[in-house]
Amino acid sequence: MNMVDLIAKKRDGGSYTREELAYIVRGYTNGGIPDYQMSAWAMAVYFQGMTPEETAQLTMEMARSGEQLDLSPIPGCKVDKHSTGGVGDKTTLVVAPLVAAAGLPVAKMSGRGLGFSGGTIDKLESFPGLQVERSREQFIQQVRDVGVAIISQTGNLTPADKKLYALRDVTATVEALPLIASSIMSKKIAAGADAIVLDVKVGRGAFMKTREQARALAEAMVQIGHSVGRRTVAVLSDMNQPLGYAVGNALEVKEAIAVLAGQGPRDVEELALTLGAQMLLLAEKETDEDAARERLRSLLKNGEALAKLAALVQAQGGDPAFVHEPDRLPRAAITLQVHAPRAGFLAEIDAEKIGQAAVLLGAGRKIKDAPVDLAVGIVLQRKTGEAVEKGDVLAEIHANEAEKAEQALALVTSALRIADHAPAAQPLVLDVVSVAKGEHDCDAAPACG
Amino acid sequence: MNMVDLIAKKRDGGSYTREELAYIVRGYTNGGIPDYQMSAWAMAVYFQGMTPEETAQLTMEMARSGEQLDLSPIPGCKVDKHSTGGVGDKTTLVVAPLVAAAGLPVAKMSGRGLGFSGGTIDKLESFPGLQVERSREQFIQQVRDVGVAIISQTGNLTPADKKLYALRDVTATVEALPLIASSIMSKKIAAGADAIVLDVKVGRGAFMKTREQARALAEAMVQIGHSVGRRTVAVLSDMNQPLGYAVGNALEVKEAIAVLAGQGPRDVEELALTLGAQMLLLAEKETDEDAARERLRSLLKNGEALAKLAALVQAQGGDPAFVHEPDRLPRAAITLQVHAPRAGFLAEIDAEKIGQAAVLLGAGRKIKDAPVDLAVGIVLQRKTGEAVEKGDVLAEIHANEAEKAEQALALVTSALRIADHAPAAQPLVLDVVSVAKGEHDCDAAPACG
Repeated sequence: MNMVDLIAKKRDGGSYTREELAYIVRGYTNGGIPDYQMSAWAMAVYFQGMTPEETAQLTMEMARSGEQLDLSPIPGCKVDKHSTGGVGDKTTLVVAPLVAAAGLPVAKMSGRGLGFSGGTIDKLESFPGLQVERSREQFIQQVRDVGVAIISQTGNLTPADKKLYALRDVTATVEALPLIASSIMSKKIAAGADAIVLDVKVGRGAFMKTREQARALAEAMVQIGHSVGRRTVAVLSDMNQPLGYAVGNALEVKEAIAVLAGQGPRDVEELALTLGAQMLLLAEKETDEDAARERLRSLLKNGEALAKLAALVQAQGGDPAFVHEPDRLPRAAITLQVHAPRAGFLAEIDAEKIGQAAVLLGAGRKIKDAPVDLAVGIVLQRKTGEAVEKGDVLAEIHANEAEKAEQALALVTSALRIADHAPAAQPLVLDVVSVAKGEHDCDAAPACG
Repeated sequence: MNMVDLIAKKRDGGSYTREELAYIVRGYTNGGIPDYQMSAWAMAVYFQGMTPEETAQLTMEMARSGEQLDLSPIPGCKVDKHSTGGVGDKTTLVVAPLVAAAGLPVAKMSGRGLGFSGGTIDKLESFPGLQVERSREQFIQQVRDVGVAIISQTGNLTPADKKLYALRDVTATVEALPLIASSIMSKKIAAGADAIVLDVKVGRGAFMKTREQARALAEAMVQIGHSVGRRTVAVLSDMNQPLGYAVGNALEVKEAIAVLAGQGPRDVEELALTLGAQMLLLAEKETDEDAARERLRSLLKNGEALAKLAALVQAQGGDPAFVHEPDRLPRAAITLQVHAPRAGFLAEIDAEKIGQAAVLLGAGRKIKDAPVDLAVGIVLQRKTGEAVEKGDVLAEIHANEAEKAEQALALVTSALRIADHAPAAQPLVLDVVSVAKGEHDCDAAPACG
């Protein structure tokens, strides 16, 4: 076997055997296959694609390329949740304690933000003292004791994916669908997931700009999950406008707390209920979606979900009082308001521009490992479709530097479009993909755990 | 401008501006663009192709990437001849002195063999003492004095092409048509050609296996030539069986001498007359193809073509007596014969296998700069289509090592197929491509010189 022949095979539309994929992934991980061959290979994959079998085998090879987390000491079905990244997406902060309150163990490794997508780990650090770096033993023990833990990725998980992703980023091959799907799924599998609920974002503020692209990615990932024995469901959700009102770390934590207290924005709650219900269904905690949603809704109302977040904060070294007094979370020094220049309907809130404004303010990072300002961000006051009068406050800029505040104000202003007529209503949840292509019998799905 | 965006542009089917192509070629040559981006780019070009304008601009950027030879001190139109490589292809050894005898200056830089394609420079070294390394001044002076010189490529011509070709070779992107075409044409242009006659080989013993591929390459190169002001004609010629009878350096020189003496194999003479006539037409030494062929044929008959080869050998430090006494050229110690196992018709002589047998004997090299044995090779006794009796000698193996002789014998035997019926006759010259696609007025072709 040699890599030149394997590149040519894919270039000419061929399909790889399991052994060939193992040769490629292992060779690249150990340095035997150089970057210049791997990037030509990735471009060939971009054009020729991969069969579902190839994609599943590639995923497992990448999952096996480094350490794999063994969550078996935690009783029950470990369902992971993953979002492809959006603006104002604080769903994990809501869903994790919510489903934990419903009895589902949540052992979640999460990431930091990069570009206009925020990261759950950054957001969690808004709680003073909260630790996101934990040993595996601490992590597992916390899930056993408290029911939920969210930590930063530890150890050498999926080194093949890390190396390949960095290469794809500089060779215009990020967009190869089988490589996106296997990258996400290999990380979830290496992190120990028995089952996986995916939130595939679609629109201006998402990596997938069209519903067709998003659906193709969702189907590819669901297919991988089923092929490798992990029940997988993908929810397609709208990311043309930001999720909820708040964008920025502490601002989003406050909004997540409001949702957990049953007083949050409708869209965030709706997405959290949808994803949470899918998690309960996959874990067989419920068999009916409506019943699952009703159970979760009651946990928002009776305070148990919020109490679970407080328990998580405390277990990870933070002060749980902040959960009940969120105004004590980091606050920015400067607040500017964006006013409606005329009456009409808010027709568009460009999520990508709002995300860029948040990065500009310091809420996100352009390069890996840069520091973030936890306090700053944007809080929308209105959402798409609402009627506005001239002079109404449409958004607030929370900043710590006057110059950046002005720049963000201009960018947020340009992200808002007022029209004479109300735009057509856009559903938040666009689709749920739960059965792999070509699979008609739901009972064929792998069992959990 | 940055390379990731430029790769994405081609990946998505875009066309480059002249400035973008200059950025890519210069960046890669000076090391600013790394191999891993260039290989992804080459794969994108493989799939998306290039417009004729892009290919022409790429060619000129590569031609300008290093030194360029100025042949203007040589009066007249400098027509270069290039073969895409085949087995037993000694045409340059015939055509160069032949057209020089007709008054066309021939200032030719040629290459060494690699793989089963032989190289003119290796063949020339069969003349003891002949020098293939000459300074530019010596080279130009010899063409002025003798009318012809054939030397090894000197100086730093087309470094962009050298670097890119080496990368393509290990990333399965050799086959990208615009890259093949620009690689060949950039070298010819940097070597100072005013006009170019291309011999595009088609078949088992050639890089282009099908007539469609060969024609596409020929059209692309003719188009480049016209775009950059170099009249270019491409001849498509058959390379399913070797050209002529002899394969191997000194063996091919002997056959070339026979052709120049008017006593060589019909196919070699025919191809030499075809290519030589096109060269005379491009240089406007003749206006009619039949007249050009007739003139060349008379130079074979009257000894002037052979005398020109003797003059070339002498000018480059060899002994011209060898031209008239070719039996003094290197000879191998061992001769084995391949006999017909039964009566019938010789239906196939697999040129690739014959080429491999020659490499096995030591006539060619598998890796660059390896030494070659000038004496060894294969001499066919029969060509495709001929009737044979059981026991007839079909080929002779000329070897210097007994073990290799036996191995080559087996390989040559497997290359020969005898059938009950004569195969359909296959023309040697398949096509002549002289006008760029979309160009209907021949007068629009650039002038020579």
